[in-house]
Amino acid sequence: MQAWKEYQEKNKDRFLNELLDLLRIPSISSNSANKEDMKRCAAAVKQSLLNAGAATATVYETDGHPVVYAEKIVDASKPTVLVYGHYDVQPPDPLNLWHSGPFEPVIKDGRIYARGSADDKGQFYMHVKALELMTNTNSQPTNIKFLIEGEEEVGSPNLGKFVAAHKDLLKCDVILISDTAMISMENPSMDIGVRGLAYIQVEVTGANRDLHSGVYGGAVANPITILAKMIASCHDENNHITIPGFYNDVVEAGQEERNLMAQAPFDEAEYKKDLGVQELWGEKGFTTNERTGIRPTLELNGIWGGFTGEGAKTVLPSKAFAKISARLVPNQSSDNITEMLLNYFRKIAPASVTVHAENLHGGEAYMTPIDSLAYQAAAKAIETTFGKKPIPVRGGGSIPICSILERELGVKIVFMGFGLDSDNLHSPNEKFDLVNFYKGIETIPYFHQYFAAINKG
Amino acid sequence: MQAWKEYQEKNKDRFLNELLDLLRIPSISSNSANKEDMKRCAAAVKQSLLNAGAATATVYETDGHPVVYAEKIVDASKPTVLVYGHYDVQPPDPLNLWHSGPFEPVIKDGRIYARGSADDKGQFYMHVKALELMTNTNSQPTNIKFLIEGEEEVGSPNLGKFVAAHKDLLKCDVILISDTAMISMENPSMDIGVRGLAYIQVEVTGANRDLHSGVYGGAVANPITILAKMIASCHDENNHITIPGFYNDVVEAGQEERNLMAQAPFDEAEYKKDLGVQELWGEKGFTTNERTGIRPTLELNGIWGGFTGEGAKTVLPSKAFAKISARLVPNQSSDNITEMLLNYFRKIAPASVTVHAENLHGGEAYMTPIDSLAYQAAAKAIETTFGKKPIPVRGGGSIPICSILERELGVKIVFMGFGLDSDNLHSPNEKFDLVNFYKGIETIPYFHQYFAAINKG
Repeated sequence: MQAWKEYQEKNKDRFLNELLDLLRIPSISSNSANKEDMKRCAAAVKQSLLNAGAATATVYETDGHPVVYAEKIVDASKPTVLVYGHYDVQPPDPLNLWHSGPFEPVIKDGRIYARGSADDKGQFYMHVKALELMTNTNSQPTNIKFLIEGEEEVGSPNLGKFVAAHKDLLKCDVILISDTAMISMENPSMDIGVRGLAYIQVEVTGANRDLHSGVYGGAVANPITILAKMIASCHDENNHITIPGFYNDVVEAGQEERNLMAQAPFDEAEYKKDLGVQELWGEKGFTTNERTGIRPTLELNGIWGGFTGEGAKTVLPSKAFAKISARLVPNQSSDNITEMLLNYFRKIAPASVTVHAENLHGGEAYMTPIDSLAYQAAAKAIETTFGKKPIPVRGGGSIPICSILERELGVKIVFMGFGLDSDNLHSPNEKFDLVNFYKGIETIPYFHQYFAAINKG
Repeated sequence: MQAWKEYQEKNKDRFLNELLDLLRIPSISSNSANKEDMKRCAAAVKQSLLNAGAATATVYETDGHPVVYAEKIVDASKPTVLVYGHYDVQPPDPLNLWHSGPFEPVIKDGRIYARGSADDKGQFYMHVKALELMTNTNSQPTNIKFLIEGEEEVGSPNLGKFVAAHKDLLKCDVILISDTAMISMENPSMDIGVRGLAYIQVEVTGANRDLHSGVYGGAVANPITILAKMIASCHDENNHITIPGFYNDVVEAGQEERNLMAQAPFDEAEYKKDLGVQELWGEKGFTTNERTGIRPTLELNGIWGGFTGEGAKTVLPSKAFAKISARLVPNQSSDNITEMLLNYFRKIAPASVTVHAENLHGGEAYMTPIDSLAYQAAAKAIETTFGKKPIPVRGGGSIPICSILERELGVKIVFMGFGLDSDNLHSPNEKFDLVNFYKGIETIPYFHQYFAAINKG
């Protein structure tokens, strides 16, 4: 619609500056030191929704970080879209690898560099601005609700309870999420699923104190050595995961889906070059896209123990730690896999150490059907603004709340992500391309238009 | 001698307070931030030697931290004893496990708690006070030289050059070192050897940046997983070291020595209880004392990579690091083993990662004969003050300069250590028992007396 285009063109600098203000708030959900920042961020999100035209916006306290809810109901007879997003971000560590401050956004080469620029502040903010655009052009074809949480990056531990307690408030015909990526601007795609997650921490203790490695070394178990052996035992020589039962509930993807996946544009040489690796690594018998899409994985997210400073310290440490997470595919249960992982590390520990293993967070995998009205509306919206039908792909990441949202609200989710895999999500120098940000704001109103039209029809 | 005893009794509080002042200086040789503290500590050591009666004392600059040399020559015809010690200390990390500040010494339950209290400030300072004691009682039977360095804890990288350049200055009949431990006050022992050391750092790099573990996990090598596999491969199921050639140059201890070792007091239940472990760990076919004495070992001193903060971060890290050191027995070459370790980690790395491995420090093992005049003088001195002949044992630790001192100066070393294995060397809450400190000061003059007498005879 011409009016949308004109409105955006006239206000695009302000849209961007507002987002930059939001990115300046260090809303790191996992860090208790940022509790006040989380509150400040929730308040800012609420205000931005009111400014954009929401009739009501409320900050709900939870046992963790607050949830922001807002709505603009135009006509009870029209379909209702619930936009889900999250205002919390990943920790910015390691800080020394950032070219500019993670919470001091800079625009460089047409990209917004900041923690949260793509994941997910920049993406949910497209919906806020799309609301403003429709409000100010008197062209909102659907009822719109917003559910913007502050605990996605820590597994949404409190959102399930909130959703269960507010089913009427959140009642809708579809849930729309922009928290995923496209293959590229030239090859737009839509995620049809996200993987589940099981994330644990393992602590291995040898002696009750750090020891001199000469006086005690060789006679007392070294917790780093033991932990390394435990980790090494998790993958076999073909990089299959060896934890007993890990693959039991995996529903293998059919040849048809695998054939379709093989058609998605993928340049392995370019992929390796971008990552700076000579060779890829992964489960034997599967392609790169299959490894990150349809297969469960087990990754080490962190490890530490002993002396990690400058130079040499001849210590035999008392403790070693690891953070370990599995990405899960549909039909694998996050709780089951978490228990399986915890028990595995507890069980394989030799008697010369003690192991404390705990669950950090998790969530279920989720798949959405591509024949739903909402998916079709989203695909048509993307085709309208990108000039190309989106390719359906399975995303490798996780949005833990998806399965809970569908269960509690009884509707499907549509993923309309405008990020790119190369956005450095969860890494230093996270970025979001300006062209993607603006293209998202341009595309979203078409989704509402087509979804309203299809539902009417 | 009664006069020694009386002098010490009268001055014991001052002796202690002087040591505490020395312990307050954070002389951490591995940390470049402590460079000025190192200079300050060297100056304090020099002053303490002059105060104790040394005729000259000099701080020599080196390419690293300074060396302190002092001497008191009483009669050129008398034998000369060179006391070696070190004023540098290990880093105090992890700081949060200390009950009091590592450089704020406290006396508790008859023990001095501070970094360096036993290793080695408290021990070399016994020799400084023994000098004072002999000076002020006009009873110094030998010429005494002091060589107190500041780089022992980082492998003495510059002392070899200093010794080679000052052979005349350092000329002596024996080198006396108090930087080892006894079995207990009830079972005095003397080390007849120290192990060598080869200390390396390994850096494993996967992708050129931290990645989202969902988007890239399973398709790109995880450097923590790879590093864990590499570490796990270093020991077999019997805890033998598997690095090809590692044991090649080991001269196996004879059955006679092993029988002697088996007679040293050792209470395994007590040992396990002290360390808080259910089961010991070590190379199959060897006892605990053999594992820490006559066998080479490979220990992980530190490991780090990825996210190590609070909570969960789903990152696939770019890099993982480990600090790894081997303790070596006589006839193993530190340089050879270092090369062996470096090559091993470089060679077993899969093509999906790059490995940078570097030498951090090292030193040769050293053995001293128990039939030397100096060893006999030391044993007799200990018997005099402890009422028991010392048991000869092999120490598990390393004093890298020993083999160089013997080679350059052409004399043997005698280890007369007054510490205990339980002194928490290199660990939080390092301590030195007051009774050991004073007993050392009491014993040392007897060594000089007996050594002078034996040499005369």
